[in-house]
Amino acid sequence: MQDEDDLFGAVFGTEEARRRTSGTAWVQAMLDFEAALAAAQADAGLVPEEAASAIAARCRAELFDVPSLATRAADSATPVIALVRDLGELVDPAARAHVHRGATSQDVVDTAAMLLARRVLDPLLADLSAAADECARLAREHRGTTMIGRSLLQQALPTTFGLRCATWLTALDEAAAALVRVRDERLAVQLGGPAGTLSSLGGSGVEVVARVAERLGLAEPVVPWHTDRTRIAELAGALGAVGGALGKIAQDVALHAQTEVGELTDGKAGGSSAMPHKRNPVGAVLVTATTRRIPQLAATLLAAMPQEYERAAGGWQAEWEPLTELLRLAATATARTRELLAGLRVHPDRMAANLDLTRGLVMAEAATGPLMAALGRTEAQDLVSEVCRRAVERGTSLRAELLDDQRVRAVLSADEVRAATEPADHLGSAAAFIDRALTAHTERENR
Amino acid sequence: MQDEDDLFGAVFGTEEARRRTSGTAWVQAMLDFEAALAAAQADAGLVPEEAASAIAARCRAELFDVPSLATRAADSATPVIALVRDLGELVDPAARAHVHRGATSQDVVDTAAMLLARRVLDPLLADLSAAADECARLAREHRGTTMIGRSLLQQALPTTFGLRCATWLTALDEAAAALVRVRDERLAVQLGGPAGTLSSLGGSGVEVVARVAERLGLAEPVVPWHTDRTRIAELAGALGAVGGALGKIAQDVALHAQTEVGELTDGKAGGSSAMPHKRNPVGAVLVTATTRRIPQLAATLLAAMPQEYERAAGGWQAEWEPLTELLRLAATATARTRELLAGLRVHPDRMAANLDLTRGLVMAEAATGPLMAALGRTEAQDLVSEVCRRAVERGTSLRAELLDDQRVRAVLSADEVRAATEPADHLGSAAAFIDRALTAHTERENR
Amino acid sequence: MQDEDDLFGAVFGTEEARRRTSGTAWVQAMLDFEAALAAAQADAGLVPEEAASAIAARCRAELFDVPSLATRAADSATPVIALVRDLGELVDPAARAHVHRGATSQDVVDTAAMLLARRVLDPLLADLSAAADECARLAREHRGTTMIGRSLLQQALPTTFGLRCATWLTALDEAAAALVRVRDERLAVQLGGPAGTLSSLGGSGVEVVARVAERLGLAEPVVPWHTDRTRIAELAGALGAVGGALGKIAQDVALHAQTEVGELTDGKAGGSSAMPHKRNPVGAVLVTATTRRIPQLAATLLAAMPQEYERAAGGWQAEWEPLTELLRLAATATARTRELLAGLRVHPDRMAANLDLTRGLVMAEAATGPLMAALGRTEAQDLVSEVCRRAVERGTSLRAELLDDQRVRAVLSADEVRAATEPADHLGSAAAFIDRALTAHTERENR
Amino acid sequence: MQDEDDLFGAVFGTEEARRRTSGTAWVQAMLDFEAALAAAQADAGLVPEEAASAIAARCRAELFDVPSLATRAADSATPVIALVRDLGELVDPAARAHVHRGATSQDVVDTAAMLLARRVLDPLLADLSAAADECARLAREHRGTTMIGRSLLQQALPTTFGLRCATWLTALDEAAAALVRVRDERLAVQLGGPAGTLSSLGGSGVEVVARVAERLGLAEPVVPWHTDRTRIAELAGALGAVGGALGKIAQDVALHAQTEVGELTDGKAGGSSAMPHKRNPVGAVLVTATTRRIPQLAATLLAAMPQEYERAAGGWQAEWEPLTELLRLAATATARTRELLAGLRVHPDRMAANLDLTRGLVMAEAATGPLMAALGRTEAQDLVSEVCRRAVERGTSLRAELLDDQRVRAVLSADEVRAATEPADHLGSAAAFIDRALTAHTERENR
Repeated sequence: MQDEDDLFGAVFGTEEARRRTSGTAWVQAMLDFEAALAAAQADAGLVPEEAASAIAARCRAELFDVPSLATRAADSATPVIALVRDLGELVDPAARAHVHRGATSQDVVDTAAMLLARRVLDPLLADLSAAADECARLAREHRGTTMIGRSLLQQALPTTFGLRCATWLTALDEAAAALVRVRDERLAVQLGGPAGTLSSLGGSGVEVVARVAERLGLAEPVVPWHTDRTRIAELAGALGAVGGALGKIAQDVALHAQTEVGELTDGKAGGSSAMPHKRNPVGAVLVTATTRRIPQLAATLLAAMPQEYERAAGGWQAEWEPLTELLRLAATATARTRELLAGLRVHPDRMAANLDLTRGLVMAEAATGPLMAALGRTEAQDLVSEVCRRAVERGTSLRAELLDDQRVRAVLSADEVRAATEPADHLGSAAAFIDRALTAHTERENR
Repeated sequence: MQDEDDLFGAVFGTEEARRRTSGTAWVQAMLDFEAALAAAQADAGLVPEEAASAIAARCRAELFDVPSLATRAADSATPVIALVRDLGELVDPAARAHVHRGATSQDVVDTAAMLLARRVLDPLLADLSAAADECARLAREHRGTTMIGRSLLQQALPTTFGLRCATWLTALDEAAAALVRVRDERLAVQLGGPAGTLSSLGGSGVEVVARVAERLGLAEPVVPWHTDRTRIAELAGALGAVGGALGKIAQDVALHAQTEVGELTDGKAGGSSAMPHKRNPVGAVLVTATTRRIPQLAATLLAAMPQEYERAAGGWQAEWEPLTELLRLAATATARTRELLAGLRVHPDRMAANLDLTRGLVMAEAATGPLMAALGRTEAQDLVSEVCRRAVERGTSLRAELLDDQRVRAVLSADEVRAATEPADHLGSAAAFIDRALTAHTERENR
Repeated sequence: MQDEDDLFGAVFGTEEARRRTSGTAWVQAMLDFEAALAAAQADAGLVPEEAASAIAARCRAELFDVPSLATRAADSATPVIALVRDLGELVDPAARAHVHRGATSQDVVDTAAMLLARRVLDPLLADLSAAADECARLAREHRGTTMIGRSLLQQALPTTFGLRCATWLTALDEAAAALVRVRDERLAVQLGGPAGTLSSLGGSGVEVVARVAERLGLAEPVVPWHTDRTRIAELAGALGAVGGALGKIAQDVALHAQTEVGELTDGKAGGSSAMPHKRNPVGAVLVTATTRRIPQLAATLLAAMPQEYERAAGGWQAEWEPLTELLRLAATATARTRELLAGLRVHPDRMAANLDLTRGLVMAEAATGPLMAALGRTEAQDLVSEVCRRAVERGTSLRAELLDDQRVRAVLSADEVRAATEPADHLGSAAAFIDRALTAHTERENR
Repeated sequence: MQDEDDLFGAVFGTEEARRRTSGTAWVQAMLDFEAALAAAQADAGLVPEEAASAIAARCRAELFDVPSLATRAADSATPVIALVRDLGELVDPAARAHVHRGATSQDVVDTAAMLLARRVLDPLLADLSAAADECARLAREHRGTTMIGRSLLQQALPTTFGLRCATWLTALDEAAAALVRVRDERLAVQLGGPAGTLSSLGGSGVEVVARVAERLGLAEPVVPWHTDRTRIAELAGALGAVGGALGKIAQDVALHAQTEVGELTDGKAGGSSAMPHKRNPVGAVLVTATTRRIPQLAATLLAAMPQEYERAAGGWQAEWEPLTELLRLAATATARTRELLAGLRVHPDRMAANLDLTRGLVMAEAATGPLMAALGRTEAQDLVSEVCRRAVERGTSLRAELLDDQRVRAVLSADEVRAATEPADHLGSAAAFIDRALTAHTERENR
């Protein structure tokens, strides 16, 4: 496991996310490349089968000293020279000449990055799917849980908590779809040799690329992509979208959990060292803090894209840490959002109470509707604005003031006024949208 | 046209890119939404046909005063209130009540953003395709143009200029594919009303959304996406990848155009105010400068994703300028890269001269190959290293020193030494990769 | 004025901020450089006085066609060639040869950027000072206005609104101090000629630099700083800190203005197109949206710092727009925060009501204090936690439950319990901190 | 030491930088705060001397289990609760009640961050000073080493390598000055308790803050700065400027070290796994890669500044990793730039050869100078442009063509033509600027 001397490692990394992005994980991915390379060349008749087998047998991370590789990596600005040397020493001399044949450092690191990404994305996507399932469950359960919708942090119009969850759901589902596309189509083997020509493989280069790709379960690129970083960029972009979708959920939870709002409780609500009464939304805070870094990590990777000639003098190397961190943080935030959603406690009573907080002012638009036909848009709006002001001044409710206003009553009956100011009757397409989100989710899951 | 008092507008914006992202373009897109909204409600029987027609007839940007709208936008933190008011005044009272019915500010701005994006992406993708065509042409023309590959800014191994162009080509094609997906699947209408419920449309909300989407040629979302910003994020990510792919080409051109390298000349090579002899790679510099801002603009949009409740108090509004700029810059960089590639002058003679600059040292790996079989990897590498050092000390060539070295000659004949040090014979799969890139490009174009 | 066809210009730019960062402002700053350069060379005897005067007489932006300069700027990736040509044509032939003598494009643009920065920073710093004054006024007025302090969006312990304002004040004052340092020490003339040697000024280069600096009221650099961008970076960093300090205030205002909190009202509280009852915190939202972009603009400038050799091929040019925007946005956010603070309405009654919302649970730490002496830290905390839980379950207050608990009463008298749970008696050093902030502010203003 | 299972730790972190930013370093800094807090309260008579001594005696990181603290940190989104509990268990019960008295988690982490920053900045500033010394040495040694200045990657005018080094020097010195200011004035203790009032310290809060500050050697803040992040922002800005100044040097080295340029050799020039002849600029590449991440890390910290109310729900926590990384990366890049400069090999012969590469075309501006007096600016420029074109077409030199041109010779004698085209005679103020940089550096060092 990673980060023995890292105080914040566990705050920003689940055990699984850290393990799958650790130095050992990197070394194993690099060794998987070396094993596949030798095997592919054996398939192509370039390397003896026995040599390939001997190499594969040693391509196990536990045989390597990660801290030593790391230290030597700094001498050459690549961890590959040391890795290849150590691997060569682990195999017998006959196999040694076939280690890393035709490949260059970048082939190893880039392909390993793709393997690492896939190994992080698989559980990440499972967590994302599970988080979406939780949203779907909440959307179903709270289809009829009326609450106030808020815009610019102000109470606006009634909605349902179920619709909010359906919105979270759709965001997660659609962010997942984009990420699945990247995983399935864009994680590709990199193999080009020092100049992208695979010159030392003679005429077999293209065949070897295909075989390595097949062995590693990665896509086969059209051409070596050593200085075409669109794959990294698309991965970063897709993870950025996921991070934002998660951050939205976490922020909503923290807002709904405010003492003054009280509509949600974070299941991981933690105590504080000094204030035993607090219910800190720890789960939401962790997700927020974790996702906050993602946009800039994505930007770092995008900014590194213009890489000089056949290999960058800095831009390529600059990808290693941010990509590793991006994967770790995105995986962690996903796992913790899943947990956050699973443990979320919903308080419909507080939602109802808050909905009533303005004594009906939030129904102003609803009340404007039936007046518009008779009075026209602007006039109806002005009238309702005036009635609202009066309700505020007198400390009464909108409904009471509407019932009391002669201009209103000239147009609407008492029942019509009551209907116009009943939140549960003004939810428009909320339920229909929830159904659509649930259906889309089910279809996606069944795909 | 935009930016009358902007000294840098034309530096970082083609006329078309600025026009399609101008205030007028925004206003027209907003009006297109209002027209489609009224028409869709007429289709659904919610609004009289004549009112919808009357509204549509006035939804022309030239009837509006953009500076006035802009000024009033600052009062309410949205340009929509003023726009709707002005539109209402342009139509007769009968139609007025049907303007903007059921919609909220965010519906207008978000849908307009999608329309704007599509109107920028259409020519952008055409330029991207044309730029890729230029890369394909160059790859074909320079399939056999040998040049030195460089890594870490050092000469490495031989490659061809054609392969470099094939790498550029593939990056452009694949970045385009990701962007096409966003354009075709992710640019969707936003229509939800103030809380996402479309409450004032009663039971017709879902139908109206579908009709507006159809009329505008945008995708129909599963649910309103007012606080699900994954669409914006994916657009930003895809444009970020495009920007990086363009930036890579521009940087390569500037590097190849260095006085000391001289392998390429930027067709827009400009003079300098003080140095008449200079051939400044103006086209490449403009593309580089333009794309440099893109990663951070993408990050700004990603960072804005966690939007509070049903509408953000700042995060949503913070998208407007960066999204507009991102579109403008990406479109400009694409158009100018197309132009850069079309006008690029290639100097195979300088490529050949540079390939010979180390007097064969760049063939060291090639020469190591045939020695490895006999001597083993490490020994062969050490021997070639020694011979290289000798060539440097004596000012001779690698070939000469290899021919002169007894340990080498014990293993290789003179012809074998010559073959091992001939760049054009060590291009591996370069031509095959070029073919693959050209084939993939053709298939993509024919799709 | 800038941005005639820009729908968002006024949303993110005050009239003054846009004017001072407009194309015209840039052109005037460039012309100021040219005038000072000619005058300085006249002082040094390199140019006839009459020529310098003739040049100065034409260095007025209104004599130049900004759109034309802008268009031509794109041809050479610099606006200077066109400007110098036009200026040359405006003066008589005798003076023409002395226009722009010894200078290069970068000298003009970089020095103009410094002038532009100073012209933006002067009113910006005045606004910042005025905003701090408003914070000081609020801190004084609300020294005794008790409110609940909140951490992680949960109610925590009592504080005063005055202390919050003192914290805002100190942040503004200290961010201003850093910015003043940059303005006074780091805004320097750039004059080096094409390679930084001022070769065409012979031995007079150093003297001319000093004279230009003096004439323009800018610092004199030790050496030309064409590729030393630390000045730009420090300016960006200082504006970044200002932006964050402003953003903090705006976010606090929006949070306090939430319907459920209701402790502050944004003086610019605006209506909504559909919800006449809403009091959107428009001022706060604008500041938030405006400051959101600043971190990435600063990053763009930092990322552009490594500039090649004697002038960058893209990195330098990439500064122009982000620097202009950064200045515009920072100036706008400052002016609007000043306005926001001046118009802020404070509701001490809502603060008091919210302080009582937990029925005394927020006094748990205060109540723990007197128990700790007798019971020890952990035991006291556990006891209070238990009492808190009981108060919640029974719907009573902490004070009532403490008075009712035998273990508590074994240690504390009824009066002691009451004292321990009175918010206004547990404000610690709040008033002292306010005084310190006010004193520091006064000292700063008097400096 | 940090990062046992981190493959890239040593690539992007010197041993010292990693040690000073490790989990252990964080824990020790937190413990230093706790020890100082208890001691300060003992000084103020709030805590028995013996308790403070007992606490201080246990405030040694080696007594704590960092991985356990890290794991528990994730439960409460702060590492402090576990730390305080463990510290409490290490001291006897009498002292236990005095551990962490009056403080909150944020006090501990924020003050620890400041201590950590100072402990990183001290050696960082020493390295920065030493790197500047190396620049000064190179500037002195190469005061007369003529080389071609390059703009937009094109050869421009002659300069000296000494002037380039003087530019590097000034950038480092001035970036250091800004950082020294932050270290000395802005690294301050944070102590406010949960709401910033220090309520549990009664009337002694202000005194205790002062005493803690004095004991830790940090500045005493005017008010608690828990939600005033300008200190962090200024630190980030100053490190950002340092990073850019270092990145500029590294990029220049890599460019000068290009095979085709060959003017510098990176002392750490490393081999490649496949190309024994290469001299990879490993030192420069590492610095470039390391500094590339800094702008976005600074942006992450700037973006986190708007922190809600009295403590942020995510924004504060989001600072921890990026601040730690920023310090590590900046310290590493500084140490390695120092090393890079110390080991740099300069090749004046290659500089001379490259200066002659255009056969005098780079002297075009110099040659224009003496012609301008007689012919006017535009005419002289046009004439020289024409002569340059001719020299290129004929493959001759500018000097030869000037000597051969009748219009030139009508104005200039042969000696004047030769003087006008001699690089070493057209260095303007290069030497004077070098002297100024050296003098400024000496003054700074003596301060």
